[in-house]
Amino acid sequence: MGAQPEQELFLYDPSLLLKLDFYRSPAKFNPPITAVAPGEPWLKVRPLKTGDYRRGFLQSLSQLTNVGEISEAQFLNRFAEMRAKGDYYVTVIEDLRSNKIIGSATLVIERKFIHSCGIRAHLEDVVVDDTYRGKQLGKLIVVTVTLLAEVLGCYKMSLECKDKLIPFYRSIGYVDEKGNSNSMTLRYANQNRL
Amino acid sequence: MGAQPEQELFLYDPSLLLKLDFYRSPAKFNPPITAVAPGEPWLKVRPLKTGDYRRGFLQSLSQLTNVGEISEAQFLNRFAEMRAKGDYYVTVIEDLRSNKIIGSATLVIERKFIHSCGIRAHLEDVVVDDTYRGKQLGKLIVVTVTLLAEVLGCYKMSLECKDKLIPFYRSIGYVDEKGNSNSMTLRYANQNRL
Repeated sequence: MGAQPEQELFLYDPSLLLKLDFYRSPAKFNPPITAVAPGEPWLKVRPLKTGDYRRGFLQSLSQLTNVGEISEAQFLNRFAEMRAKGDYYVTVIEDLRSNKIIGSATLVIERKFIHSCGIRAHLEDVVVDDTYRGKQLGKLIVVTVTLLAEVLGCYKMSLECKDKLIPFYRSIGYVDEKGNSNSMTLRYANQNRL
Repeated sequence: MGAQPEQELFLYDPSLLLKLDFYRSPAKFNPPITAVAPGEPWLKVRPLKTGDYRRGFLQSLSQLTNVGEISEAQFLNRFAEMRAKGDYYVTVIEDLRSNKIIGSATLVIERKFIHSCGIRAHLEDVVVDDTYRGKQLGKLIVVTVTLLAEVLGCYKMSLECKDKLIPFYRSIGYVDEKGNSNSMTLRYANQNRL
């Protein structure tokens, strides 16, 4: 029902995902999989697209945290903002059998003055549907955006995580530096005025 | 030597700093100071300006980490990028006697789909010159950008810090949630292609 979107937009250039060298990552995949060959012919790793609102992208995210009620117009508005700013690399896994988004991770670029006007990366909002466990897809999506940050020229990438995920991220090359690996948060009562 | 810049640009609207309610912060200042009244008539808290390259902004940052050689043109280019993107709130303290930047902190806004297309804040690159210790200026600059994030409508602000700074950030209202307060980092060999 409803017309299919005639022309979908990618959030970022999908050809970037062809440049990732999975041999550069310390992460071990068994069997070996990559963003281009994710292990099943019906799985596709790609940038977020405008039509992913109808492919259950937000429902997938809701397994991670509170998403709230978001209309298609609101989704497209935020998508357009991210695309215009150019520093958002939301990367998804689609199940081509059901045309559903079954996982995603976000790489955000931050521009700095330090490190010779360097750029750094933040890993945000990693989720893979529970029903797809055992396919290394969590590792795949995280390594994908981690390698992408290197291709983009970042000097580092960092993330915040729960204790139980430390071994997982260590296996991918992330380090919890002794004496310097704390994340602290302040939550506000109000929100969402921008 | 050299002409003074005729018209300097602010990185963001300086009137935002008039909206901060320091009574909302759990941080205690003794004596009480605010962004508008930072305790000395010769101290000024304000957004980064284009002319701050000549006021030693980068020299101040170099007390924090490696800054590298940055020409004025490179500085102005990065400044223009940040200003165009609109989500960078680099906030500085100037000593009006010497016209030198003596501290700064950066608030970066990240746009999300989660939390009803919410926005969150990152605290980055906090530094205050050692020679200005004892004036509560570290606390002042951090509370300033923390309150600013609330005015902008963020649902949370987070930071990465060393162990020894945990009590300081707790006193300002930041929480290291049990089991969920890890920061991990991966550093790349290459950098800076964007």
